[in-house]
Amino acid sequence: MVNRTATRCDLMLFGALGDLAQRKLFPALYQLERAGLLAPGSRILAVARTEAGTDKVKEQLLEKLRKHVKSEEFDPDIAQAFLQRVEYQRLDFNDPEGYQALRDWRDEPDNQLIVYMATPPSMYGVIARNLEATRCCNERTRVVVEKPIGHDLETSRVINDELGQVYNENQIFRIDHYLGKETVQNLIALRFANNLFASQWDQNHISHVEITVAESVGIEGRWGYFDKAGQIRDMIQNHLLQLLCLIAMDPPADLSADSIRDEKVKVLKALKQITPELMGSHVVRGQYTAGTSGGQPVPGYLEEEGANKGSETETFVALKAEIDNWRWSGVPFYIRTGKRLPEKLSQIIIHFKPAPHYIFDPDQKHLANNKLIIRLQPDEGMSLKILTKDQGLDKGMRLRQGPLELTFSETFETDRIPDAYERLLWEVMKGNQYLFVRRDEVEYAWRWVDQVIANWHDSGEPPKRYAAGTWGPVASIAMITRDGRSWYEDA
Amino acid sequence: MVNRTATRCDLMLFGALGDLAQRKLFPALYQLERAGLLAPGSRILAVARTEAGTDKVKEQLLEKLRKHVKSEEFDPDIAQAFLQRVEYQRLDFNDPEGYQALRDWRDEPDNQLIVYMATPPSMYGVIARNLEATRCCNERTRVVVEKPIGHDLETSRVINDELGQVYNENQIFRIDHYLGKETVQNLIALRFANNLFASQWDQNHISHVEITVAESVGIEGRWGYFDKAGQIRDMIQNHLLQLLCLIAMDPPADLSADSIRDEKVKVLKALKQITPELMGSHVVRGQYTAGTSGGQPVPGYLEEEGANKGSETETFVALKAEIDNWRWSGVPFYIRTGKRLPEKLSQIIIHFKPAPHYIFDPDQKHLANNKLIIRLQPDEGMSLKILTKDQGLDKGMRLRQGPLELTFSETFETDRIPDAYERLLWEVMKGNQYLFVRRDEVEYAWRWVDQVIANWHDSGEPPKRYAAGTWGPVASIAMITRDGRSWYEDA
Repeated sequence: MVNRTATRCDLMLFGALGDLAQRKLFPALYQLERAGLLAPGSRILAVARTEAGTDKVKEQLLEKLRKHVKSEEFDPDIAQAFLQRVEYQRLDFNDPEGYQALRDWRDEPDNQLIVYMATPPSMYGVIARNLEATRCCNERTRVVVEKPIGHDLETSRVINDELGQVYNENQIFRIDHYLGKETVQNLIALRFANNLFASQWDQNHISHVEITVAESVGIEGRWGYFDKAGQIRDMIQNHLLQLLCLIAMDPPADLSADSIRDEKVKVLKALKQITPELMGSHVVRGQYTAGTSGGQPVPGYLEEEGANKGSETETFVALKAEIDNWRWSGVPFYIRTGKRLPEKLSQIIIHFKPAPHYIFDPDQKHLANNKLIIRLQPDEGMSLKILTKDQGLDKGMRLRQGPLELTFSETFETDRIPDAYERLLWEVMKGNQYLFVRRDEVEYAWRWVDQVIANWHDSGEPPKRYAAGTWGPVASIAMITRDGRSWYEDA
Repeated sequence: MVNRTATRCDLMLFGALGDLAQRKLFPALYQLERAGLLAPGSRILAVARTEAGTDKVKEQLLEKLRKHVKSEEFDPDIAQAFLQRVEYQRLDFNDPEGYQALRDWRDEPDNQLIVYMATPPSMYGVIARNLEATRCCNERTRVVVEKPIGHDLETSRVINDELGQVYNENQIFRIDHYLGKETVQNLIALRFANNLFASQWDQNHISHVEITVAESVGIEGRWGYFDKAGQIRDMIQNHLLQLLCLIAMDPPADLSADSIRDEKVKVLKALKQITPELMGSHVVRGQYTAGTSGGQPVPGYLEEEGANKGSETETFVALKAEIDNWRWSGVPFYIRTGKRLPEKLSQIIIHFKPAPHYIFDPDQKHLANNKLIIRLQPDEGMSLKILTKDQGLDKGMRLRQGPLELTFSETFETDRIPDAYERLLWEVMKGNQYLFVRRDEVEYAWRWVDQVIANWHDSGEPPKRYAAGTWGPVASIAMITRDGRSWYEDA
């Protein structure tokens, strides 16, 4: 089903002068142009509050493209061709009158309309209603929205309801950009095209799973925004639970968006509730103090610019998630994410159970379980740890853990790895929802995360401190150690 | 159990001036010296029929070492130290008197005596009896013998009986040098230390197995010798059936020699008889005709130097072996070996079954089975074929077969891969029999091979011709094609 035919699209991009649009969306659209994937006649209407002319905006866009596209991938001619598709429209999102100009821009009603709301979620409803009121959109329109969808289950319902009043669920493309990463999509191929893995993907064969998404950066000037959310809302409710779903879901009967999303929802529904009694053994919450990063001293979370000294917002979470179903009963998913950790690293580790009987040197028994390591960054790829006989004459039957390695950037030399937003925009243009998050996924994820937040609130316990540049509070190590395990470290 | 302590050994090497000793055994012993694995006081008595002095023989040995040891591994000082262990003794193997000199050489009766018979098998009995008569050996002596052990079951029994009159089975080290190859030993680690493979190693998960041992050379001046044997005796009865046993055996309860060999014998006993009715579908016998090798024209088997024009000896065999037991019922082992094939290549391919349900592009379904490829040569190593998502924006969920690669020479950079004879001599010195062939293994292998040879004889059908430089008679392709499969070709 290789299909290079892109539908001719009219893309309205709200928040076109914002950081996301400039840093990610326009560069991704440029890459689609460069790959020849934008249909002739496809057009982009950049919409924002700022008073400016199209020429001025294009000038600025060109500058940003030069900055955010790799120099070897930047071609001025392609950039010019791309910018010819762009027009700018100033709009006060709250002003119904202003939307008439958007309607006027739509000269070819047959073009597929895509509305991309790169705006705060509080704007989604008003934009949707105004577009509807001016009959800018219809039941074929596709609307793309960014996280965060709300702050908890209740507020996410409000936002989803507002969108739902104008659009059907099959028109709404909720972005979790992790789903656009090659390696994340690869989980589907890896799990369901390889019976070697598929037939072992359960509690009979897997002892536990680790998911780590570590950031080395701190707050990067977003203190005020981040402090209202915290790491659990900012990272776990969306990215880490999405990864968990892709690892844990039952095989879908086909690759349709709803077959996949039905299976993901089943996982979210089967997540074991973390009651107040389980908090001590299942959840660790941390906040970084002053330390070092990349060899330089860095301030603690409470000393960052704009900080409120009394904040108890977490910058680190480690969780032991359990899935109460047939496939995963008894298999913990240890997940952790934090800021100011020693390195930028995202990886999933599947720990397979050892063979039932061990016949090699007793002192090597700890080696004897296979691991599949799926790296999201750096160096997207995967590696399978298998045991071989150690080389060398005097080694007898000593074992050695050798990796079978597959690094995408090396293996698929001729191809570049597309950025997540390129993939996601392309799928929107093709109308494929399988890489987008359905309403019930968002809401079940909130339901699970909300209880943890509520437990924190009820207990009044502050986050545990950890020095910037370390792997979080020692309690997160204790959490996994109590189960006789440890966080994986590449030897 | 790393054990660098070698017992102090007296090694009597019969046939010390022959090709095997000069080309393989002395270089292997030199490597043991170089690795510091020969105990101080260990000595070597080179025994042969030729009249010569020790100095002359050492001179010749040094020359051969220079030739057969890689130059970067040859160190004149180590060679000198090694040669100081060597003495030469001229001996007519049939002359009982002569053995007194061997007895005299044994000045330290506590040294472990190893008798290596690098002689024609017809000599094994007479050497054994003469050693016994002169009380050169005792129940601690280890005796090493080379293939071929006989020409068929009957003659192998004669040889084994002759050895058995002097030595117990636990003193006899029958060499199949394939068992000394790192990759072959690695099969044991691979299969039993990795539950990822161990738990799938049966008819539920594996569809079929291929074993190919291809030689590009022809007869190399050995026409007279080879013509009496043929490819089935020369390669299948020993090497290929040993590989098949290591792939197919049930897990041994421990790594002791008899635990492993008990399991191998179970496989040989369970090999399905190839009755005359099955010959057409299960066996292909070939003989090469003139063709090309390495771009050069080469003669056919019947035109080689010394050839008997009427010979019907096979230089190629392809077999479909079936194992009638619980683990392998319904899983054919396609094995083939031949001379004057397009390349020198030994590999084992485990074809895993596909997942029960396929959800990717219909036109890629043929890709969807995992394969484990174990290469013995060239480049010992292994590679696991898994399916990943194809890279590239416009590829959607297209699959791509990527290898997870482990090449021993690359991965274990710091180590050289020891030659099979180094490993085997070292194991003899340590008294480990697990890499040597037990009497019942030899005999069950002959029993199975004999019936095929008898069927050939009874049918009177000549071998099928194939041009030198091709992959054998087309009938060998037809044999596997009839089962809806094909011989693996690396893409």
